[in-house]
This record gives sequence, structure tokens and C-alpha cells, in this order.
Amino acid sequence: MQNIQLKSTYKFSEIKGLLSKDLLKVEDIIINKLKSEIPLINDLTKHILSGGGKKIRPIITLISSYLCNYNSDKHLLLAATVEFIHTATLLHDDVVDQSKLRRGDVTANDLFGNKASVLTGDFFFTKAFELMVESKSLEVLKLLSKASSIIAQGEILQLTTSNDCNITEKKYTEVIYAKTASLFSAASEIGSIISQEEEKKRIALKNYGKNLGLAFQIIDDLLDYTGQTSLGKTLGDDFREGKITFPVIVCLKNASSQEIDFWERTMQNLKQKDGDFEIAINFIKKSNAIKISKQKAQHYALQAIEDLKIFPNSIWKTALISLAKIVIERKK
Amino acid sequence: MQNIQLKSTYKFSEIKGLLSKDLLKVEDIIINKLKSEIPLINDLTKHILSGGGKKIRPIITLISSYLCNYNSDKHLLLAATVEFIHTATLLHDDVVDQSKLRRGDVTANDLFGNKASVLTGDFFFTKAFELMVESKSLEVLKLLSKASSIIAQGEILQLTTSNDCNITEKKYTEVIYAKTASLFSAASEIGSIISQEEEKKRIALKNYGKNLGLAFQIIDDLLDYTGQTSLGKTLGDDFREGKITFPVIVCLKNASSQEIDFWERTMQNLKQKDGDFEIAINFIKKSNAIKISKQKAQHYALQAIEDLKIFPNSIWKTALISLAKIVIERKK
Repeated sequence: MQNIQLKSTYKFSEIKGLLSKDLLKVEDIIINKLKSEIPLINDLTKHILSGGGKKIRPIITLISSYLCNYNSDKHLLLAATVEFIHTATLLHDDVVDQSKLRRGDVTANDLFGNKASVLTGDFFFTKAFELMVESKSLEVLKLLSKASSIIAQGEILQLTTSNDCNITEKKYTEVIYAKTASLFSAASEIGSIISQEEEKKRIALKNYGKNLGLAFQIIDDLLDYTGQTSLGKTLGDDFREGKITFPVIVCLKNASSQEIDFWERTMQNLKQKDGDFEIAINFIKKSNAIKISKQKAQHYALQAIEDLKIFPNSIWKTALISLAKIVIERKK
Repeated sequence: MQNIQLKSTYKFSEIKGLLSKDLLKVEDIIINKLKSEIPLINDLTKHILSGGGKKIRPIITLISSYLCNYNSDKHLLLAATVEFIHTATLLHDDVVDQSKLRRGDVTANDLFGNKASVLTGDFFFTKAFELMVESKSLEVLKLLSKASSIIAQGEILQLTTSNDCNITEKKYTEVIYAKTASLFSAASEIGSIISQEEEKKRIALKNYGKNLGLAFQIIDDLLDYTGQTSLGKTLGDDFREGKITFPVIVCLKNASSQEIDFWERTMQNLKQKDGDFEIAINFIKKSNAIKISKQKAQHYALQAIEDLKIFPNSIWKTALISLAKIVIERKK
């Protein structure tokens, strides 16, 4: 790390490079913790881990710890913990949403069935729980148990609101805060807790994570219409499930009655036919929703960067600032 | 409680009477903890709580605490915690097994769909987790996180082994230990942990819970063939899912080749037709499996009672001994 220059911004690969040894240790913790005498569990975890994933949440935990000058080793197991929680929610999402692809691969659900995905999600969640208990920090436990509960409630809220063409931007933001930004926020706050950092810095990192998570999810929702199929998950998952996300909300605001009929038929009543997804993309492009969604994500990313102003300049601050830029510029 | 005589044995209603004030407090904790701003969550929890249930796990936690002369109030929230964990596993079981009835009522799954059951199970589990963190006991957290992980692994082990007509009694016992007895064991051990009881008594309560749980599950599995439909869940759930349980294992031991064909067709290949369940019951009755299953449950119940010998006589010791008797005599 000594050789790294204080650059104004890092690429994601450079951030991963900064943390390469730590990320290997986190990976080791994950692999060791998942070892089981039950062959199906090993098959499932092998499949899930082979997908890789961006590991953005554990990266946030590692960087926020270093930003607060943390110098012991709890951050490694807590980084693994947030990745476990995230993976557990992915597994249950796959059951719920019946998505066909995740991380560019068939889902565990397709390969092993609903039963196995529900139970393996539970297994990951209980492993997260065991790991965080190992941290012996009641403050961290309180934070992560609260975040887990908010995520679960967010998923249920999404289930009950997201097929409604009248969903407001406020309700949408509530959903994405709960299901995504709350874990980003906790992942970020952890660093300040284990470093026993002062309250102001703790709140700064909590807010940074929240705003980064909101930006991340809005871009994620936009990429479901505009992303590159060859690189990530299938496009159109949200559309097929009738999950009304930011770009659609924007689109609906100035929609003609004909367009409203289209969205109600496809998203609310889930009566979809071939070619509908392409029509949806056209409506979104025509309505300027891509630009407006990007601007909204940018707004949160800038807010995240602003949250960091309390910290003195350092490699780690630059890394967190860079993450906010990376999140809104990503194409997958 | 002062008026209660030291009887040689209590009925279940008498035990509930002994704990009536505490059980109301536990119920209050559960209701308050589940309150949500999301209407569907309130609908689901109302439905689930209206089922009532035996509350045997929280009762064990309360009694084991009193047996160890506990005199603060953590036992109440931990009793609620074990009930939450149990309810979460029931919700995920209902998704997985597609049982039509649970506690004599339609399952949450039937009413609200698979999606809602998976996510509400997660919600209950995260609430369990929040509650136990409130206990501020790292020892309890370690115990319950470990138990939760064993339960999750037990459910997966069951998924991969229980349709196999060659499943051994040893493997079956491993499954029921994991999915049932481990939580009974933790529920019981909690009392000794929060009372900072000596190691020997802690192990005694851990073993008591384990043996009680094994007895409980064997009777549960027997009742799926011989129970009273009017009082509890539907009969034959295990049979329809091809879940090979203790009575069937006994039956298979001395089965004719014709009988083996029957079990393989119905349980292993899940090719079932009308009248098969009645044939299964007849095979079980003919093979003496009812008696042998009861004897096996009795063996564990006696072992559970034996585990308590380290404790001096008291109302609470009698209550735990009575529970072991109640568990093997229950008809639903």
C-alpha cells in the first residue's frame, strides 16, 4: 500500500488492488465458514461463490475501517458478514422473483430448486449471524440486526407496492433505502464503530453508505432497461415482474393515456406479450427517463461524497469518493 | 406461584398456569416487536399469532431460568426470541413443503403466497435476532446463532436425505436433532446461561432440551400417521412429501418386497395415488411401528428426565419432568 500515490480518483480495479490481500483473507473466511458436511450445501456455495460478484459491500467495510485508522482484524470478518447477508437476500430474491440469471449465470434456484434456495439463504444468513457474534461487538450486532430487519421489511414493502402504477417516488425511495441502502449504510458505519470513532464521523459514514446505496440501486434499476446483457444479469427482470422502478416512475409522470394503458397492462396486470419489453425501452428513452434517473443517482452520489468532508484527505477517503463515481458510471 | 403445591406431575394446562403472567408478557413482547408500518406484515403476523401454537419452546426457556433461580427479566425476551426462530422456520417449512394446514388452519403460504412467506420468515428471523441482541449476552448470542445455523443445515440435510428409502435411523436422528432438538436444547440451556449457572448444570439443561426435542419430533412424526385431524395439522403431510420418518424406517426394516416396492414408489419416486396413504397407515400398524416409535420417544424422554437429576427438587424441576411426559403422551 505504501507505493500507492494519492490520486484524485481510482478505478474499481485499483481499489480492489489496494485491498487485494484483505479481500483474499475475506474470501478465505467466507470459504472456511461455509464448509459443511452436507454435500448439497457445498455444491450450492461453490456455485454461488464461483459467480464472484463485485464485493462492493465488503469493500466499503474494509475502506471505512481504514479511513478510521482501524488496526486490528475484526473488519475482515465483518466484511465477510455483510457479504453473507447480501448473498442470503439474493438467494431469497431469486426464489421470489424467479429471475433466470444473476451475475450472468443461471440462478441457484434454477439449478437446485426453490426449496434449496430458501434453505441455503437461511444457511447464509445464520452464518452471517455466527460471524458477527465472533466480532464480540454488541454495537455492531445491534447495527446489523437492525439493518437485516429493515431489509426484510423492505422486501415485503416492495412486494406490496411495486406493481402499483401510482407508486410515488417517495415510496420507491423508501423501498430502495430498506432493501439496498440500509446494508450499504451499515457496511460503511461498521468501520467507525469498531474503531470507536467519534459520533460525528460515525454519522458521516452512515450517511455516506446510505447515499451510495441509493445511487447504486437507481443505476441498477436503470441498467435493467439499458444495461449490457453480455456482462451481467438478464435485462428486463424488473419489467417482467412488474416491479415499478425509478425510470418507469419518471416515464409515467408525463405519459400519454395510451402509454399509461401500456404500463398498467404490463406492470400492474402483468399481461405481457412478445415485444412489450422493447416498447417499454422505447417509452423510457423517449421520456428522458434515462437522463433523469442518472441525474437522481448523481445527486445521491454527490451527497455521499459531501458526507465525507469531515475526514482529512487520505488514500481511503479518495477510494470512497471514487466508489461514488464508479457506482454511477457503471455499465453492468 | 406461591400457592402451587409440589405435585409429582403437572398437566400442560397447569404448567401454563404456573407461567401465565410470564406468558402474557412474552406475548406482549412478540406483538410489540412485530408491529410494522407495512399492512401486509401486520396481516401476516396477525394470522400467524392467531394460530396460537403450544409455545413449548418459550415455556422451556422460562422454566429453565426459574430452575436456575434467575431473577431478572432477560428470560422473557429470550423466550420470545426462541418462539420467533421457531415461527420463522415454520414459515419457510410451509413454503418448502407446501403443507396445506399448520396448527389446524390454512398456512400463511396458502393465503398470501410463497413470496410473502419467505420474506415474512426472514422478517421473523431478523426480529429474533434483534431481540436476542437486546439481551446483551454474548454467550446467549453465540448459542442461538449456532443453533440457528444447525437448524438451517438440518433442513437442507432433510431435503437431501429424506426421500431415500435406505435412510438409516442414525441419519434420521441427525436430521431431527438439527431441525428440532437443537432449538429445544438452546431454549433450555438459555436459562442456565443468563443465571450464570455452573458448567455441570448448563450441560444438564442442554442435554435435557436435546433429549426432549428428539422425543417431541419422533412423536410428531408418528402423529402424522396416527394423529387426530380435527385438532392439529393435516395428517399425511410427511407421506405426501415423501419424507421418510421414524415409523417408516421401522416399517421398512421388516418389510416384504411388495411393501418395499410400495414405499419406493410412493416415497422415493413420489408416484402416489388415491388410497396410498391409507395403505401406508395399515403397513405401519401391522409392522408394530407405532409401538416401537413410542418406545423410542419414551427412551429419549426418560433420558431427559435423567438429565435433571443434578437439580434439587422444586416446582420447576417437576414442571420440566412433566413436560417430558406430556411430550410423549400428546395426541396432537
